[in-house]
Amino acid sequence: MTTPWRATILTLFPEMFPGPLGLSLSGDALARGAWSLEARNIRDHGIGRHRAVDDTPAGGGAGMVLRCDVLAAAIDAAAPAEDPRPRLLMSPRGRPLTQARVRALSEGPGVVVVCGRFEGVDERVIEGRRLEEVSIGDYVLSGGELAALVLIDACVRLLPGVMGKIASGEEESFEGGLLEYPHYTRPREWEGRAIPEVLTGGNHAAIARWRADQATRLTRERRPDLIGPRATADRP
Amino acid sequence: MTTPWRATILTLFPEMFPGPLGLSLSGDALARGAWSLEARNIRDHGIGRHRAVDDTPAGGGAGMVLRCDVLAAAIDAAAPAEDPRPRLLMSPRGRPLTQARVRALSEGPGVVVVCGRFEGVDERVIEGRRLEEVSIGDYVLSGGELAALVLIDACVRLLPGVMGKIASGEEESFEGGLLEYPHYTRPREWEGRAIPEVLTGGNHAAIARWRADQATRLTRERRPDLIGPRATADRP
Repeated sequence: MTTPWRATILTLFPEMFPGPLGLSLSGDALARGAWSLEARNIRDHGIGRHRAVDDTPAGGGAGMVLRCDVLAAAIDAAAPAEDPRPRLLMSPRGRPLTQARVRALSEGPGVVVVCGRFEGVDERVIEGRRLEEVSIGDYVLSGGELAALVLIDACVRLLPGVMGKIASGEEESFEGGLLEYPHYTRPREWEGRAIPEVLTGGNHAAIARWRADQATRLTRERRPDLIGPRATADRP
Repeated sequence: MTTPWRATILTLFPEMFPGPLGLSLSGDALARGAWSLEARNIRDHGIGRHRAVDDTPAGGGAGMVLRCDVLAAAIDAAAPAEDPRPRLLMSPRGRPLTQARVRALSEGPGVVVVCGRFEGVDERVIEGRRLEEVSIGDYVLSGGELAALVLIDACVRLLPGVMGKIASGEEESFEGGLLEYPHYTRPREWEGRAIPEVLTGGNHAAIARWRADQATRLTRERRPDLIGPRATADRP
């Protein structure tokens, strides 16, 4: 048996985990050991009687900054230098997460995820522990915890046996570079709206063609950036 | 007293809420009524003895599709036509969420959020109930629940009194169109790495200049797309 995919979280709110990941398909997979999750409290490495983890920003400003020495100690305890897993810091300054990166992470041994809080994290620990900053989108959260849950959910659903054919990936948004085509199911008519005829006609080649056309149309309309300048220039 | 900001979630997993939002600052704010959260089970409107909510996709394919009639009934029960709140459907096909959109949502009356599961949602309910598809990023999740939590967290932290000055927004990533500058705090030296001298010198104008330069540099290096073609062309 191979070692299951392993997620280690460094956070000031370990009680947020597994949270939503403890339910539904990811929760079932967690319960049967298809992956593992360990949430470690950064505060265990805090300083002094009050286990301080943060301090005021050098140069002034609002908020508090997570100390590099405290965070480095937490990282070193959770993931020794020889741990092969990538060390990610969830941060709006990071490289935007993509489905290709999710797939690559899900095919590796797992992840070590650092969740920032407060105003930010001392820059030196990012350099000193070679943390890779990852952003789940262009907005600001109250902390990295929800971003970590998102990243892990995206990875876990791709693990073998977790979601079965649903996550086979062939026809999902972003796999193949396009948004997904529209879906329909029973009833055939609803509030005067019918399922497109082609989908109920039984001509599988026509259905495949219609879906490919719809995926291309939707992507051009909504996300020309995913297709690139050449395809955008082709737009009528 | 004004009506607090109100989030209504339609989901097959109401037990995922408030989840992480019940802790930390958003949880404190929820407990004191600064905002409210209601998670409603779509299955309450399911069909037949088994309360079926989904069916196989018209035209074939893997996975199951949420029925339009079931979801419309759930939406109508949760948010009558005169409810002024925007109706969002979390979906990777949606318009990417931005901090500007988050700020606008946080300044409104709240949100109604529909969480998809399975392969997708019958397209006709998106049209028939004027759902606005919103994506939190270019990756696929096992359902819309984590995306809903992310969207609500981003909004709630901007509500008056929730995070105080930390979320004043003036110096955060994306406000002003740039990524945030690097942060430092004590100790002054760590593993041979010192806090940049300018930050400890007490010259506030020099500090502000350094931070602005760093924010611009980081954004150009990591996210030239945020600055636009003109600024990118200025790159050395």
